[in-house]
Amino acid sequence: MQENNSNSALKVNKGVEQPPIVNPYLDNFYKKKRARLLTEDEYLKGILDGNTTVLSQAITLIESSKPEHRVLAQRVVARSLPHSVKSKRIGITGVPGAGKSTFIEAFGSMLTSKGHKLAVLAIDPSSEKSKGSILGDKTRMETLCNDKNAFIRPSPSGGSLGGVARKTRESIILCEAAGYDIIFIETVGVGQSETAVHSMSDFFLLLMLAGAGDELQGIKRGIMEMSDLIAITKSDGSNVNKATLAKALYTNALSLFPPAKSGWIPSAVTTSAITKEGLDSVLKKIDEYFELTDKNGYYLQNRMEQAKYWMYEAIQEELKNRFFENPAIEKNIKHYENLVLKGEITSFVAASELIKLYNKI
Amino acid sequence: MQENNSNSALKVNKGVEQPPIVNPYLDNFYKKKRARLLTEDEYLKGILDGNTTVLSQAITLIESSKPEHRVLAQRVVARSLPHSVKSKRIGITGVPGAGKSTFIEAFGSMLTSKGHKLAVLAIDPSSEKSKGSILGDKTRMETLCNDKNAFIRPSPSGGSLGGVARKTRESIILCEAAGYDIIFIETVGVGQSETAVHSMSDFFLLLMLAGAGDELQGIKRGIMEMSDLIAITKSDGSNVNKATLAKALYTNALSLFPPAKSGWIPSAVTTSAITKEGLDSVLKKIDEYFELTDKNGYYLQNRMEQAKYWMYEAIQEELKNRFFENPAIEKNIKHYENLVLKGEITSFVAASELIKLYNKI
Repeated sequence: MQENNSNSALKVNKGVEQPPIVNPYLDNFYKKKRARLLTEDEYLKGILDGNTTVLSQAITLIESSKPEHRVLAQRVVARSLPHSVKSKRIGITGVPGAGKSTFIEAFGSMLTSKGHKLAVLAIDPSSEKSKGSILGDKTRMETLCNDKNAFIRPSPSGGSLGGVARKTRESIILCEAAGYDIIFIETVGVGQSETAVHSMSDFFLLLMLAGAGDELQGIKRGIMEMSDLIAITKSDGSNVNKATLAKALYTNALSLFPPAKSGWIPSAVTTSAITKEGLDSVLKKIDEYFELTDKNGYYLQNRMEQAKYWMYEAIQEELKNRFFENPAIEKNIKHYENLVLKGEITSFVAASELIKLYNKI
Repeated sequence: MQENNSNSALKVNKGVEQPPIVNPYLDNFYKKKRARLLTEDEYLKGILDGNTTVLSQAITLIESSKPEHRVLAQRVVARSLPHSVKSKRIGITGVPGAGKSTFIEAFGSMLTSKGHKLAVLAIDPSSEKSKGSILGDKTRMETLCNDKNAFIRPSPSGGSLGGVARKTRESIILCEAAGYDIIFIETVGVGQSETAVHSMSDFFLLLMLAGAGDELQGIKRGIMEMSDLIAITKSDGSNVNKATLAKALYTNALSLFPPAKSGWIPSAVTTSAITKEGLDSVLKKIDEYFELTDKNGYYLQNRMEQAKYWMYEAIQEELKNRFFENPAIEKNIKHYENLVLKGEITSFVAASELIKLYNKI
C-alpha cells in the first residue's frame, strides 16, 4: 500500500505556495494529482478495506480521461461490483440558498452518529468552470469532513452530463464496496442533472425554503413531482411559522399528484440544521420508504430498471457523441439549424439531410 | 383536381360490406385507402384552397411508409411551409374518462362559431392495436365532424412515438397552410406522448375530473407541471361542488410550482360540456396566454426552440433506430441486458461492448 500522507505530498512542491489544508477531503484533493497508479489488486484490496485514500484514488481513476486509466478503472469497478453492501442511495436537490450544505452536514452527522457510513457524491455538469462548485467550499461541512465515517467527494469537474453521470454511478459502486451503506447524491436543482440523479437514487429528497415566492424561481418544473419527500429548510427562529405554513401547502400540493410507482406517498416536513428539528422526521420517512419498497419489491425492481436505463442511456450518449463530433456534421449542423430556425426547411428534412451527410463519411 | 366523393369511392368495392358512413371524417378515412396520388402541384393547390379532401390525402401521404410517398410528402410539406397562417397550437391531454371528446366537441364548436377554423389532430402511439382509438369512435363529436370549419384527423396508426410525432408535426404544417388557425393536438395522458405533444404545442391544456382520488391513477407525474391551464371537466349537476373544490385545490397546487419560462401563471377552471359553463373562461385564458407570449416574445422563441428540438430529436431517433435494428445488436442486446440486470457487469461496460460490436459491422 502506498504511503502518501499530506506532508510528503506537499514536500514535492514546496517552492509553490499551497493553500492551507483544512480537512481530509481537501487533503485527498491535493494528493490525488501526484498519486502513482496502484495495481488492480491494490485498488480492490484498499477499497474493500475501506481505505479512503485508495477509494479516493480509484475514483480519480474513474474520472481520468486517459484510455489506460479507463481500462484499469473499469476492471476495478467490475471487481468491486459483487462486494457492494446493500445501500440506500438518496438523491438530494434544491436551489442554491436552500441550505443543502448545512442540511447535509447536520443530517449526515446524525446518520454517522447512528453507526452508518455515509458517502456524499455530487453531480454538477456546470462545474467545469467552477471546478466542483457544489462541494468545493465546504466551510459549513467541517464536522462531516472530519468524520471518519463520512466520505465526501466533489463533483467530477467538466464533461457532459452523460459522462459525469457515468463517473458518479461508478463511484457509487466503489463506495458501496468500501462499506458505505448510505450514499447521498447531491445536485443543484436548476439544470437537467436532477433527472440523472433521480435515475440513480432510490429516494429523492427536495430541499425547499419556506414561502412560495421568488426562491422558487430556480427550481425546474417537474422536480417536485419526482420527489419522495420535501424538506422545508431553515425552520428556526422567526422562520418557523412560515415554514410550517409551507409544509401544509406542499403536503396539500403533493396529495394532488398521481401516486408514485413505488407505492410511496410523498409528504413534506420542516427541518432546521440549527435546532436539528425535523431531522429525525426525515430519517423516519426514509426508513419507512425503504421498509415499504423492500417489502413490495420496488427497491430491487427500480434498481434493475435503473441499471437497464443507464445501459441504453450510455449507448445513446455514445451514438450522439460520434455523430456530433463527426467533422462533416460539425461543419454543417449550424447551417441546417439556421434553416430550420428561419422556417425554410422542416426539422425532419434537416435531420434527414444531416444523416445523409453522416452516412457518406 | 380529383373528383372523389363518397359514392364513387365506395362503388369500387361494392361487393365488400362497408360500414355506414356517418360523417365526413369517416368518409375521408375510407376514401384514402384507394385515392390515387395527385401531383405535387395538385396537392399544394388543394391545400391552399382549403380543400379538406386533398388535405386529408396529403396527410395520408405523410403517413405512408412507401419511400416514393415520403419523398412526395416532404416536397408538399416544404412548399406548404411558407403559407402557414399564424396559428395557435393547443395540446390537450387527460386520462380516458376525463371527457376529452365531449370537451373538444363543445369547445371546438364554440371556436368555429366565432369564425375560427379548427383542426384536431392526435398523437397516440398505442393506437397500433386500436387503429386510432382516440378519435376512432367519435359519436360524441358529431357536431364538430359535420362542421365545415373543423377538420378532424385520427392518430396515425402504428409506428414509434418519434415516427408518429413527425407525422403529426408535418400534418400541423399542412393544416396551417390550409388556413386552420387553431390546432388541437390531442393525446391520452398516460404514456410518453404528452411530452411530444407539449413539445409541439404553444399552450398545454390538462383536462381533469373533479376529485383527487382514483381518477388520478393514470396521469403521469410531471404532466401537471407542464400545464398552462387545468380544466376540471363535467362540472354540472351534482358535480358542481366537487368541481369547484377541485378547482381551488389545483389553483393552490399550481401556485406552488416554479414560474414557467413563458411568464404565464397557470390556473384552474371548471367546465361543463353540457351547460357550456366555463368554456368561455378557457378561451379567455388561451387568449390572454397568446397576448402575453406574443408581447414578451415567448411565442416565437418557443416555436423556434421547438423546431430545433425536433431536428435534434429526429437525428437521435434515426441513430437509435439504426443501432437497434442492426442484426448483431438485435442478436446480442438481450444477453447484455441480462448481465446488467443480474449485476454481473455495469451498465457502462455493457454499453461499450455493444458499441464495439456495432462498430465491427
